[in-house]
Amino acid sequence: MGKMMTIDWLARAVPQAGRLYPYVPGKPVETLLQEKGLDRAIKLASNENPYGPSPKAIAAIKKTAPEVNRHPDGDATLLKTALADFHAVDTDQVLIGNGSNEVLELLIRTFAGPGDEIIYAQLGFIVYALATQAAGATGIAVPEADGLTHDLDAMAAAVTDKTKVVCIANPNNPTGTLHRNESIQAFLDKLPRNVITIVDEAYYEFVADQLGDSVHNLSHPGLVISRTFSKAYGLAGCRVGYAVANPDIVGLANRFREPFNLNLLAQSAALAALDDRDWVMAHVAETITERERLEAALRSMDMSGGHSFGNFVLLRHSQSSEILQRLENHGIIPRPLAPYGMADYLRISVGLPEENTEFLSVLEDIVHKLGRCG
Amino acid sequence: MGKMMTIDWLARAVPQAGRLYPYVPGKPVETLLQEKGLDRAIKLASNENPYGPSPKAIAAIKKTAPEVNRHPDGDATLLKTALADFHAVDTDQVLIGNGSNEVLELLIRTFAGPGDEIIYAQLGFIVYALATQAAGATGIAVPEADGLTHDLDAMAAAVTDKTKVVCIANPNNPTGTLHRNESIQAFLDKLPRNVITIVDEAYYEFVADQLGDSVHNLSHPGLVISRTFSKAYGLAGCRVGYAVANPDIVGLANRFREPFNLNLLAQSAALAALDDRDWVMAHVAETITERERLEAALRSMDMSGGHSFGNFVLLRHSQSSEILQRLENHGIIPRPLAPYGMADYLRISVGLPEENTEFLSVLEDIVHKLGRCG
Repeated sequence: MGKMMTIDWLARAVPQAGRLYPYVPGKPVETLLQEKGLDRAIKLASNENPYGPSPKAIAAIKKTAPEVNRHPDGDATLLKTALADFHAVDTDQVLIGNGSNEVLELLIRTFAGPGDEIIYAQLGFIVYALATQAAGATGIAVPEADGLTHDLDAMAAAVTDKTKVVCIANPNNPTGTLHRNESIQAFLDKLPRNVITIVDEAYYEFVADQLGDSVHNLSHPGLVISRTFSKAYGLAGCRVGYAVANPDIVGLANRFREPFNLNLLAQSAALAALDDRDWVMAHVAETITERERLEAALRSMDMSGGHSFGNFVLLRHSQSSEILQRLENHGIIPRPLAPYGMADYLRISVGLPEENTEFLSVLEDIVHKLGRCG
Repeated sequence: MGKMMTIDWLARAVPQAGRLYPYVPGKPVETLLQEKGLDRAIKLASNENPYGPSPKAIAAIKKTAPEVNRHPDGDATLLKTALADFHAVDTDQVLIGNGSNEVLELLIRTFAGPGDEIIYAQLGFIVYALATQAAGATGIAVPEADGLTHDLDAMAAAVTDKTKVVCIANPNNPTGTLHRNESIQAFLDKLPRNVITIVDEAYYEFVADQLGDSVHNLSHPGLVISRTFSKAYGLAGCRVGYAVANPDIVGLANRFREPFNLNLLAQSAALAALDDRDWVMAHVAETITERERLEAALRSMDMSGGHSFGNFVLLRHSQSSEILQRLENHGIIPRPLAPYGMADYLRISVGLPEENTEFLSVLEDIVHKLGRCG
């Protein structure tokens, strides 16, 4: 394969390749077990649904397994139709991606290239910045007003005639902050009508009570609302995300979509999970109860990083990297937020009740020892 | 969603959006059944493995189903390691994609943008042209010398200092033509060392006897050999493809890859299918036997479009669109090649023996009636 030849392939790549670095995912369980010589671990690193996928989704996957010699429907017709019904929109308003990650990337690639600007919050979901870099566009990262919350006024003020896309995460990952619809609508009203505005609601189900029907309650010609099956729906392994938007916007993004971007099994699983809404919402309620318990405990230890509206909590401590190490020694995997420049923070996904109890117990022990011995 | 507003979103999109049209997949079985009021159909449109996925792959999917609430390993470590072992290369030489489609697209996006040129055969796999357009690069489509076979001399002669990538499909879909390794190597020897040269071996397993170990037998610094699990491995629904190349090339393409591009279920299925090589090769042999039978029958009807080295045959007839209609009326779905400018051709995937027999029987009847009544 010519492995020994020395050619500067970076110099042959498109210019943005040099500025682009891969996403750092949460540490896999297997990696930690190997590193530490442990036989079990609790992964609280990736905001997954600890209760599993819906039983209906598991059954759908098993039923579809013998058919994977066939291509998936390239238009994901059944899933798209079900999502259109669910949101009371037309099917041509639904864009489906291999995870909402692909939805975001498709939209950014479709509307922004070299010379164009994309606005996002400095602590917004990191994929906005990565997809902007990959498209060769210029990212404008707007600092948070209070350290954690999207500064919508500053973001609106950052819009120029080069702005093609604005990305808002609501609630945001990793900061857990939320803007109510009235704030988002006031923000949308300030934007030029022809700016694509992605409101990324990956954690929507955890704030459904606060946001209501955002798809119909928010209004802007360039509005794109994205959702995912990776969080509350418990299908992170299937990679299914989608967006609802103006049909022209969806149609253009579809031109950049690969013909069979969504796996046959993923289509079946998402369709079944969407049909098991009661299961999803019951576990959302349990997750919120557990989140409140975790946050109360962190506050009582004076380690809370602020209230989170997602399925995760924020731990803040000046010795967070030491705490990270010691949690991992006990087989507990949190997510360090240093890649976001939040060096004092760890993000802890809400686990099963017994996992959360174990996490708190280990954490108390760690803090006790840290306090005594440094 | 502002559906009623009139903004010219195409004018807001990147310039290449206007030239880009989506891939037209084979007609889904469900669509034909609805159109024709039929209750069964034989899909010979998408070069799938009619024998199904390997039983080991089905078992792996079922076993993994309850775990899809967890993210896949973003690096697909187990699969990548197995593929590296299989090809006797290092893991950093393996690029894994959501189908080989994504592998091709990642490589093209990484190395080509506006002003750069990509060379492919006029009748080469259509995804090369689509990915080139999506990247905003300039496609150079080189005509075939004899109407069907990649003209490697003309392709080498088309290289300029703007050429970043050359794509060769071997065997090619949809023409079924093959170049032996000596021809490919002679071609590689003519290319500048720093041109990425993708040899797309999606149909490799059907010509393994002819090509041997192409990964090690071919040599060029920019050589990329791509393979897929969608054809002989019977996993078209899972979307797993990969390429083997210089680690720097793989590393750069990985920068553009989405963090979790490969579904958890797909990783399990591909790993199991790779481990069931005997099953795969047994069905490859049956497919080749059936292909020879189909080609002999087409020749005897004076309708052969030339020998195919893939898991499909070519039917050539001046009334091919009429034949297409009548086959579909009988629930048989071939693939029209008009999108490739091959209006006289239908591509027929090799089906199960009984499906091929039924196809031939229906075809003979159609041709008989066409001959009598036009």
